[in-house]
Amino acid sequence: MGMTMTQKILAEHAHVAEVKAGQLIEVDLDMVLGNDITSPVAIKEFEKYGFEQVFDPGRVTMVMDHFAPNKDIKAAQQCKACRTFAYAKNIKHFYDVGEMGIEHALLPEKGIVGPGECIIGADSHTCTYGALNAFSTGVGSTDMAAGMATGKCWFKIPEAIKFDLRGKLAPNVSGKDVILHIIGMIGVDGALYKSMEFSGVGLRNLTMDDRLAMANMAIEAGAKNGIFAYDEITEAYVKERVHRPYKTYEADSDADYANVYHIDLSAIKPTIAFPHLPENTKTMEDIKENIVIDQVVIGSCTNGRLSDMETAAKILKGKHVAKGVRTIIIPATQAIYKECMKRGYMEIFIDAGCVVSTPTCGPCLGGYMGILAEGERCVATTNRNFVGRMGHVESEVYLASPATAAASAIAGHIAVWEGE
Amino acid sequence: MGMTMTQKILAEHAHVAEVKAGQLIEVDLDMVLGNDITSPVAIKEFEKYGFEQVFDPGRVTMVMDHFAPNKDIKAAQQCKACRTFAYAKNIKHFYDVGEMGIEHALLPEKGIVGPGECIIGADSHTCTYGALNAFSTGVGSTDMAAGMATGKCWFKIPEAIKFDLRGKLAPNVSGKDVILHIIGMIGVDGALYKSMEFSGVGLRNLTMDDRLAMANMAIEAGAKNGIFAYDEITEAYVKERVHRPYKTYEADSDADYANVYHIDLSAIKPTIAFPHLPENTKTMEDIKENIVIDQVVIGSCTNGRLSDMETAAKILKGKHVAKGVRTIIIPATQAIYKECMKRGYMEIFIDAGCVVSTPTCGPCLGGYMGILAEGERCVATTNRNFVGRMGHVESEVYLASPATAAASAIAGHIAVWEGE
Repeated sequence: MGMTMTQKILAEHAHVAEVKAGQLIEVDLDMVLGNDITSPVAIKEFEKYGFEQVFDPGRVTMVMDHFAPNKDIKAAQQCKACRTFAYAKNIKHFYDVGEMGIEHALLPEKGIVGPGECIIGADSHTCTYGALNAFSTGVGSTDMAAGMATGKCWFKIPEAIKFDLRGKLAPNVSGKDVILHIIGMIGVDGALYKSMEFSGVGLRNLTMDDRLAMANMAIEAGAKNGIFAYDEITEAYVKERVHRPYKTYEADSDADYANVYHIDLSAIKPTIAFPHLPENTKTMEDIKENIVIDQVVIGSCTNGRLSDMETAAKILKGKHVAKGVRTIIIPATQAIYKECMKRGYMEIFIDAGCVVSTPTCGPCLGGYMGILAEGERCVATTNRNFVGRMGHVESEVYLASPATAAASAIAGHIAVWEGE
Repeated sequence: MGMTMTQKILAEHAHVAEVKAGQLIEVDLDMVLGNDITSPVAIKEFEKYGFEQVFDPGRVTMVMDHFAPNKDIKAAQQCKACRTFAYAKNIKHFYDVGEMGIEHALLPEKGIVGPGECIIGADSHTCTYGALNAFSTGVGSTDMAAGMATGKCWFKIPEAIKFDLRGKLAPNVSGKDVILHIIGMIGVDGALYKSMEFSGVGLRNLTMDDRLAMANMAIEAGAKNGIFAYDEITEAYVKERVHRPYKTYEADSDADYANVYHIDLSAIKPTIAFPHLPENTKTMEDIKENIVIDQVVIGSCTNGRLSDMETAAKILKGKHVAKGVRTIIIPATQAIYKECMKRGYMEIFIDAGCVVSTPTCGPCLGGYMGILAEGERCVATTNRNFVGRMGHVESEVYLASPATAAASAIAGHIAVWEGE
């Protein structure tokens, strides 16, 4: 029996020829990631067990992104703990205010993660890097601590669900719509502890940003990881960023899957996940009444990349957001922020009545920079719409693509962009 | 005995020919201001007393600036309360996320306040508008409620201190240095319940932004208000913004003053207020050791205006902030933010390793967007450096001009800009 992409990467990192689903195995890590929320806990564990140095200062990354620039004293103390540790251990990839970005946008952008690598991160959306044909998954702070100390992590080898993609997305549909469609189809536990493996002829019609958004939300179906086959599009993205040797992995033709789904990308419509689960998906035909909104957020590790900003700018150009809709745009990294300025997107956003935040996770997890009051509704390009996720327990988050979010901001209610 | 500028404005608004210091008098208000922190309290009072409509929907301003875009659920609820009230009462000047700015930058910029007017605001820095030759002062939320309901407010007529200005500032000195110098000289209660009245031949060498920064900090000397004589510079600023008739006021030549100070602007050096009071001022000669810093904030109602951004950009151009100095730049209004983009300042800031926030009061009052941890030091262009003002009680804030703040960000410790 052959292996899946995920299994092959894990076998290689465990220095064995073959692994089987369900097997427990220890693997070498290429990168260990933490943020300002999770790293302080990991640092405490690391110190409690008496470790003195990290296994490799070049293979630990810490990004101050969740509540930074510091939202309150607690956040300030947490960032300080990370900074002190990072300086003391000479950690190469420490990203503070001014250098930063949202971790899962920053690591691919800077080539800190690459194809075929094995990455853990103390953040559930670490699965994002699967878009690069890497194995990456979210872990707890204790695993992060152990990973920083030893460069290793134990895993149960996951079985996989294969998503065989074909066709081409319509102009107003993006990777976000695809992953919302899939989560709507299989449910928030539809891929529990499994790999979601994306391949097929349709891949060629998905940009890296589409793939990053899709892999990012694999966790929202309960998956251990999401991973994409490597192709020319991956290569074009990676060759500008990853300046070290890397291996790519494809699934064996006789690999075993728990399930195989055939997805025609051309059939997917703009998809919105209604409160309070990412699986509560609807398309416009399902929405019978105007869902009037108070806020729109375009950003996050799911959809704060340059192409997301480009889409928002295209739709908002020359328009104005509806009265009463606070529209908050958060480019995911400093590089994206700067490119938005250069390309004139920022001016479009400001003229349209939006505000542009410095990169931060901010409102996505109810941190700051756009928290909702009782009864308020937000269309967000973020990844979770659980009860109280963005603020008051009586608020509502509707997950959508940047195109849908921008169109909704203009309309004042949930709306789909009808343009090209 | 003649009257001061302040006394003449108050007399006119009380419809009497003459007032004397110490007299209690009711005056008509031209504008009543509140923000997202103070308005909700005022709204409750307003409703408790059974008022149904504000005295004039065109003469009430509410600005969502302190903790907006909403920093947490409480902030979200407060903004919602303001929004609901403003929509119900048809309040003309309601500024929400996307239209906003820091109130004391926004109101002069938009011509909502003008010369000779009488303005109260439920925010201590309402005294800023004195730069326009207006009487404006901070009040409590109850006075705001009464002001919204009746358009009137009771005052005890203040006596005044006259600041007779002459000379011209050196290139690296600004209005901020002047007001810090004055507060250092007279102390934080040096003008208690008095008017600080600025006039003299040196006025012609102070820009409107210098004056706005100076009037803004009158409260830090305990003053009831700060006010500047009207001149061609005021006129040039106002004529583009205030499209209604207005009157200007100059002090009678025989006006009585509690004190008169003669200030030679050319003798003022870059001035820094050390923790934990604005009166703890020093110039570089007084500073014997390197004061290493963790953060710089350039913004606030004191120094977030375009010329402040221009100064920061000039100094940061082609430079990079020191490692470990989080440098947070906050243009005070959307218009300033946009102009910073157009002029290329934003690119300079990002290239220098700064982050740029959407307009907000944020860190100035320990709100969010740059809160300090224990033991951290910040050079800030804000207006208060009380214990715990920007975060942890064991943190320190050093008040300075934008030039000093930018130079310090580059140096990594308190430093004065030596350029032209």
